[in-house]
Amino acid sequence: MKRRKFIQNSSTIAAMSLATNGFSIGKGDWFKGDVRVGIIGVGARGLSTLSLALQRSDLQVVAICDIDPITTGKALNEIEKAGRPKPELFTNGPTDYKNLLEKKDIDAVFICTPWEWHTPMSIDAMNAGKGVACEVAGAMSVDECWQMVRTYERTKTPFMIMENVCYRRDVMAILNMVRKDMFGELIHMEGGYQHDLREVKFNDGVNYYGGGVEFGDKGYSEAKWRTTHSVFRNGELYPTHGIGPIANCININRGNRFEYLTSIASKSKGLNKYITDHPKGGKDHPNAKIKFKLGDVVTTNIMTANGETIMLSHDTNLPRPYSLGFRVQGTNGIWMDVNNSLYIEGISPSHKWESAEPYLKEYDHPLWKKYESEASGAGHGGMDWFVMNAFIEAFKSKDPMPLDVYDHASWAVITCLSEQSIAQGAEPQSFPDFTDGKWMNRKPIFSFGDNY
Amino acid sequence: MKRRKFIQNSSTIAAMSLATNGFSIGKGDWFKGDVRVGIIGVGARGLSTLSLALQRSDLQVVAICDIDPITTGKALNEIEKAGRPKPELFTNGPTDYKNLLEKKDIDAVFICTPWEWHTPMSIDAMNAGKGVACEVAGAMSVDECWQMVRTYERTKTPFMIMENVCYRRDVMAILNMVRKDMFGELIHMEGGYQHDLREVKFNDGVNYYGGGVEFGDKGYSEAKWRTTHSVFRNGELYPTHGIGPIANCININRGNRFEYLTSIASKSKGLNKYITDHPKGGKDHPNAKIKFKLGDVVTTNIMTANGETIMLSHDTNLPRPYSLGFRVQGTNGIWMDVNNSLYIEGISPSHKWESAEPYLKEYDHPLWKKYESEASGAGHGGMDWFVMNAFIEAFKSKDPMPLDVYDHASWAVITCLSEQSIAQGAEPQSFPDFTDGKWMNRKPIFSFGDNY
Repeated sequence: MKRRKFIQNSSTIAAMSLATNGFSIGKGDWFKGDVRVGIIGVGARGLSTLSLALQRSDLQVVAICDIDPITTGKALNEIEKAGRPKPELFTNGPTDYKNLLEKKDIDAVFICTPWEWHTPMSIDAMNAGKGVACEVAGAMSVDECWQMVRTYERTKTPFMIMENVCYRRDVMAILNMVRKDMFGELIHMEGGYQHDLREVKFNDGVNYYGGGVEFGDKGYSEAKWRTTHSVFRNGELYPTHGIGPIANCININRGNRFEYLTSIASKSKGLNKYITDHPKGGKDHPNAKIKFKLGDVVTTNIMTANGETIMLSHDTNLPRPYSLGFRVQGTNGIWMDVNNSLYIEGISPSHKWESAEPYLKEYDHPLWKKYESEASGAGHGGMDWFVMNAFIEAFKSKDPMPLDVYDHASWAVITCLSEQSIAQGAEPQSFPDFTDGKWMNRKPIFSFGDNY
Repeated sequence: MKRRKFIQNSSTIAAMSLATNGFSIGKGDWFKGDVRVGIIGVGARGLSTLSLALQRSDLQVVAICDIDPITTGKALNEIEKAGRPKPELFTNGPTDYKNLLEKKDIDAVFICTPWEWHTPMSIDAMNAGKGVACEVAGAMSVDECWQMVRTYERTKTPFMIMENVCYRRDVMAILNMVRKDMFGELIHMEGGYQHDLREVKFNDGVNYYGGGVEFGDKGYSEAKWRTTHSVFRNGELYPTHGIGPIANCININRGNRFEYLTSIASKSKGLNKYITDHPKGGKDHPNAKIKFKLGDVVTTNIMTANGETIMLSHDTNLPRPYSLGFRVQGTNGIWMDVNNSLYIEGISPSHKWESAEPYLKEYDHPLWKKYESEASGAGHGGMDWFVMNAFIEAFKSKDPMPLDVYDHASWAVITCLSEQSIAQGAEPQSFPDFTDGKWMNRKPIFSFGDNY
């Protein structure tokens, strides 16, 4: 606290902070101890973030914000169990987060709220000079993406989009292989979000997953808000898990950029069938009358400035095993995750798939080698540990964020462009250049070395 | 011969044949013995067709046509080895097939020539009243597809598109499962032609596959003509292996139809790299200067009238294992061939892939159960036997062809529409309705039961 007071009282720093909210000060001047954070939204995702935060010795959770007393209670329990000090609570309705942002002893916030809150909260946080670690989602509008970019450019407050799949162990090993040129020049990539979410979109209003066909006011947790997007929107609603790792492989916004996309959506049958087939649903259940606009499978093709093509598949309404459907293909080989196989010319037996396992071990990313034990047990197979670590370490070092506001904008905008394309019968849609041309000169920075 | 003479001399039949080229006569009146066929084109594919034809006791190969004396010699050897009578030869240049078509003792022709010859030869054959078994390819123009359709409608000469993958064992087992409603209502399908053809597109001018970087005049076999399409065209050049099996699953032209597509093509790097890296090629080889127009990976999305979406992948320029990339997905489950796995709700363990093998065995198509031993050893894992058998049996029975001219036109036109879409930056392209609305009332006929 003394450290912070000193900084706040320094007239030099105060003057700079008027212009830049304090983030132009020299490396290492500021954080010598803990990063003090607030968590906005402690539902299913926020609780998981909290639990990771409580494991870090360089991080203090000084504030919690949520409109739901049950989930706030769970968060407080977690904090007490961890033997950490009780945080300040902000539970007074959906705009109480603004009061959290006025707290002087908060350095950064984790935003783990429903999708539609990510942009207003991020913008308010950046304007308040709080570093932002924002959960992933598709954007609500193209303009919303621009607002994020312009706010960042004006405030220079650190912003990171918390795309955890970028840190998945196999994904990072493949990135390592890409950078060692083992796939040759990259040509075509695939990814997506193929995840049977029917028990996420519907529940019994009490438990997180399944057990009923309720959503909206009668649903609980994600069913309360996420399902609404399936009722009203038809597009690639959740692009980042698929596009993030691909974007890192082909240096999007850093020598390359997305140029245009087209999307096509199948008919929408899965959610209605789930409701009518469910023992607690049936044809006479009021939710059986709802017309879900989201096509069961939405396929998006993206063209890049450097001529690579990308196919994204969004598939969340049907019974199916989980698969992000990754494929990385170049002039020298191909990897697919659905069969966990690859082919490298000159190494693999001619015209035959090989198990990817030995390669994933051999080319394990330095970060995973170094932090395997720390990450083990963390959410989503450890990758959640890495994405939080990256934000905190980059924040402490005042380094540029490894997944920044331009990444966020160009990934999240896919949702809006795909909605437009589908609404226009698959007409191609141009990507805005959120970097204003800076993509031509920016250099890749994501996870080189074993720092974070 | 007596049988045929009798028919030809019958004034009743002759009068009918003026109107319909002889194909309106009652079932079973005509063929009590062998079907007499000519084979036009006895290159790699034609020789394989010939070898299957020679195994059938109900089929006489009475004529062979090819411009190449080497390949014609190989065909004659095969026929002699099989102890069959020497056929009449038509080797006098590229239009000598027209003389073959004038032969009165030919009932049907197999067309196994380069792609660009399929339409003119099929049309001439239908006009000559010869049944047509035509090898697969993409079309050269949209109008060419219409010409095929209109010629068929005028002549009513039996025409079958010889799409062998429609008869692949796993594909037929899955079709069987689709018809038993195991996947529920179909929603999304994938397929394609993912086949490293670099040693097909380039060879040493002597051998069929590889050993050099020559094509066109200096190439041999497919390299002589097929590669030219990669030089000049950018599109889904070879759609039928992927789309045929999918079309059968969702009853295209029989209660359903393709509505529109968009295509996107990656940069073209694979063929140039192959030439420059090859020991007989190099940067100074004249072929290293050629700009291949065909993108290495071409991805096409198709929308159907009934709301299913289809993704096709054309991928022939890069090092990769062979995969047609099939996926059949409905409201009750999903099958993929790349991991040979499926998931059926209520049967498979929750959220987990199962090996497809036990299902493929249990739902083995009746045709495969019946003819497994006959088909074993035939080309492409036996499926070539089935496609020829279907043509010959339908022809003998005067049944409608199981894969007809409308199937051909709506599959082959994908090539032209995808070229147009790519040339226009992924603009969607509408499919012509080659059935003139008949798709609304036509009923599925492909491989019900175990007849053919």
